[in-house]
Amino acid sequence: MKARAKPWLLENLRFAYYFLGVVYLAMGVVMLGLEALSLLLRESAWGFLSGAVAGLGLGAWFRKLGDPKHEPGRAEALLSIALIWLLVPALGAIPFWISGGMPYLDALFESMSGFTTTGATALADFSQFGYSLFFWRSLMQWFGGVGFLVLAVALLAHLAVAGRQLFITESTGVQKEPFTPRLRTAALSILKVYAVLTLAAAVCYWIAGVPAFEAVCNALTTLPAAGFSPNPRSFEQYTPLAQWFGTLFMFLGGAGFVLQYRLFFTLDPRPLLKDVELRVYTLIVLVFSVSLAAFLMTHHTQAMNYSWADAFRHAFFNVTSIITTTGYASADFALWVPAAQAILVTAMFVGGCAGSGAGGIKVIRLLVVGAIVRRELIRSLHPQAIITLRLGSKTLGEDVMRSVAAFITLYVALVVAGALLISLLENDFILGLTASAQAVGNIGPGLGEVGPMGSYAGLEPLSKVILIFQMWAGRIELIPVFLLLTPELWKKLRG
Amino acid sequence: MKARAKPWLLENLRFAYYFLGVVYLAMGVVMLGLEALSLLLRESAWGFLSGAVAGLGLGAWFRKLGDPKHEPGRAEALLSIALIWLLVPALGAIPFWISGGMPYLDALFESMSGFTTTGATALADFSQFGYSLFFWRSLMQWFGGVGFLVLAVALLAHLAVAGRQLFITESTGVQKEPFTPRLRTAALSILKVYAVLTLAAAVCYWIAGVPAFEAVCNALTTLPAAGFSPNPRSFEQYTPLAQWFGTLFMFLGGAGFVLQYRLFFTLDPRPLLKDVELRVYTLIVLVFSVSLAAFLMTHHTQAMNYSWADAFRHAFFNVTSIITTTGYASADFALWVPAAQAILVTAMFVGGCAGSGAGGIKVIRLLVVGAIVRRELIRSLHPQAIITLRLGSKTLGEDVMRSVAAFITLYVALVVAGALLISLLENDFILGLTASAQAVGNIGPGLGEVGPMGSYAGLEPLSKVILIFQMWAGRIELIPVFLLLTPELWKKLRG
Ligand SMILES: [K+]
Ligand SMILES: [K+]
Repeated sequence: MKARAKPWLLENLRFAYYFLGVVYLAMGVVMLGLEALSLLLRESAWGFLSGAVAGLGLGAWFRKLGDPKHEPGRAEALLSIALIWLLVPALGAIPFWISGGMPYLDALFESMSGFTTTGATALADFSQFGYSLFFWRSLMQWFGGVGFLVLAVALLAHLAVAGRQLFITESTGVQKEPFTPRLRTAALSILKVYAVLTLAAAVCYWIAGVPAFEAVCNALTTLPAAGFSPNPRSFEQYTPLAQWFGTLFMFLGGAGFVLQYRLFFTLDPRPLLKDVELRVYTLIVLVFSVSLAAFLMTHHTQAMNYSWADAFRHAFFNVTSIITTTGYASADFALWVPAAQAILVTAMFVGGCAGSGAGGIKVIRLLVVGAIVRRELIRSLHPQAIITLRLGSKTLGEDVMRSVAAFITLYVALVVAGALLISLLENDFILGLTASAQAVGNIGPGLGEVGPMGSYAGLEPLSKVILIFQMWAGRIELIPVFLLLTPELWKKLRG
Repeated sequence: MKARAKPWLLENLRFAYYFLGVVYLAMGVVMLGLEALSLLLRESAWGFLSGAVAGLGLGAWFRKLGDPKHEPGRAEALLSIALIWLLVPALGAIPFWISGGMPYLDALFESMSGFTTTGATALADFSQFGYSLFFWRSLMQWFGGVGFLVLAVALLAHLAVAGRQLFITESTGVQKEPFTPRLRTAALSILKVYAVLTLAAAVCYWIAGVPAFEAVCNALTTLPAAGFSPNPRSFEQYTPLAQWFGTLFMFLGGAGFVLQYRLFFTLDPRPLLKDVELRVYTLIVLVFSVSLAAFLMTHHTQAMNYSWADAFRHAFFNVTSIITTTGYASADFALWVPAAQAILVTAMFVGGCAGSGAGGIKVIRLLVVGAIVRRELIRSLHPQAIITLRLGSKTLGEDVMRSVAAFITLYVALVVAGALLISLLENDFILGLTASAQAVGNIGPGLGEVGPMGSYAGLEPLSKVILIFQMWAGRIELIPVFLLLTPELWKKLRG
């Protein structure tokens, strides 16, 4: 039995190995470029070189092990997703470890936080990193965002996982093609939209007075709702205009790929006005922002003594940042009064639209759950009634509803379990709850020590391991990770 | 249109009026008895007299309006449940208001907390109440517990609400009878079991050194997982033996009516060993208690400097108290370190077995959700598979799963909404979260100011209104309350 273990894993994951090989090779090439940059800037030379060597070497080996024509089955595809989203950050951590002065665990935390577009940092002292490391940190978020969208729009939807089947629509340009071309089509259109919007954001930030390097880095991490900034104070020290631009581009990022595509390529926004998810998303952002603004305007303390205009700006910026799961901050909301923080903690569970790089539960899943509850209420009156649920013009299938219910249950369970464990490890309940919620939602900042101007560096190693696990599981929408715990997966892979 | 409003409400709710009339008359008689007691003890005379007059007067009137033979439909039954569980506490509050020196809002809070077996007190100074008021407070919890079990076992199960249809089993002695006899059968067997166990608890407490009056009052509030104690320090000042007895009877109370019935009337506990819910319930209590004990033994602070024996006793007592949603305390856990509190906050979401007086989500619903999630994980591998789920020997129907999913969603939504609002009103996040969670789960104590030795007296009036709403909605298992928000209910009642 034991002798067969290697063959079936090798046999079944041939596509994954090939794909991982290609990604590792690409990462190797990018790190070679960053090596050149760091030599040019006279920054620490060994980190990117080691990463490049590892990437190119392992990449070539994995590519040779793999087979691009091996169409993976469902079990293989789901296992591959989990594996790739763990091994890519493992390689990406090398420069942080060797050149950034971080222990490997912290470097992996930073890298996982990067590729999952979480944006939680284990960096306590920002002077440890040079330009090249900050640029790498931003780049990994940008590519992580593109990768996630390919995963969510092309892969999870076709695998009918986590309710993503709801998202199969002609408008995304993703047809029912075989595996590799499907990935390629999706990736290309996403890259196109992301590139244009990122450029626009960079220019806007720069015009609004953000230094050029920071404008580029922040633009790379705005659209994928990612949130790393090379500035230790995030958006706090930028001009009000730059902060409003941040709010705008975060909102666009959370509104999702279809909106972005329609707005900038078809120039016809009319169908969007009918989009239920987009309307509810906008409404949620408005309600939370206006509530917070009203609260900030009426409750002045030393840490939040805002004028009318400031209150609105900070409310819209930070609410949009949390709801879209970007994680920037225009003020250190960890110093606000508990009531103002309560609004932000609640916002952590929303997430953007399903076709965006945002983490969290996401608006459409909340709408599906609302529909399920409404139907059960009506069924308690009319138990025999057959009730078809709709979202906008779409009929909700039973499979979507069941998937969404299971997804949200796993989501809440993972947040609660993490909150309990981290609270125990850190002896801080608010830190435990917010660190856990932000990690599963790929948000970034928590409250207390891990607030937007704080760092995860000081946490217990075991807390960091839990958070790395949560960021990873949250980003690939939980199902591929929890599947690893079922005997059925391993049985299917073996036989 | 407007002119018809009165007739259809009168017409449809004739059974509710009759039932409410009978209950009000009974409450009037009980209050007459308590009036005699308070005269005998020379305590404030007007509260019970006013309550008795109101109860007898209104009771006679409602009884005359109603009709015992009018079999209510589903809509009428659900609306009646909501109405009765609001109007009974409204009457029960009168003695607290007139003789207890409380504003009516606080008196209603205390009374709602009583009848819903929550046990959260708005009493800041326990010397405000005489013996007769404390006895009334305990009695209302005992009858509230019996009332809830009749509701849950006989009514909600037959209405197939909140997944209760799972609970229809021959062993409860509740057959598919018409309305009134069904209620009577259920109520009689529940009363019988409760009476015996309450007597046993009172004797055990008294033997263990609890003063006779407190032993009786505490026994009345132990079995229904209710938690009011006439002692402002709850179980803190009792002997270790009394605390262990408390743990035992709380555990029995949370294990549910069927266990209690089997153990004490059929004397054959063997089928219980096969009961999945009971086994998981026991396991959860053990895991949480031992974890907390281990934590208390290894983390000494001024407020929790326990010996080995103390740590186990306090861990088992307080975990059992929170999981069964009783709400007693053997120590002021609001002073414990956050990590120890995190265990208790997590335990708030469990609840006892479905056939008990416990609040919370309840073990069997958590098991159903686990089964749903497991099935979806397998479905992500085998999308076409038809998977039948079982709990023990029972097959889980789709209707049960949908009901449970909707129930838990409403539960979590109500906790989150309450936590946000109360956090905003009180500017305290931990207080808001725990006050909200305890209210929906009918638990009693929260943390901070509303900890087990604290009081809800100091909260904002609006916070009290929210908590009264949550206790009410939580106790009648949410569906009847949220149904009030659907136009379908009012349409069905009208036509
Ligand atoms: K983020
Ligand atoms: K209670």
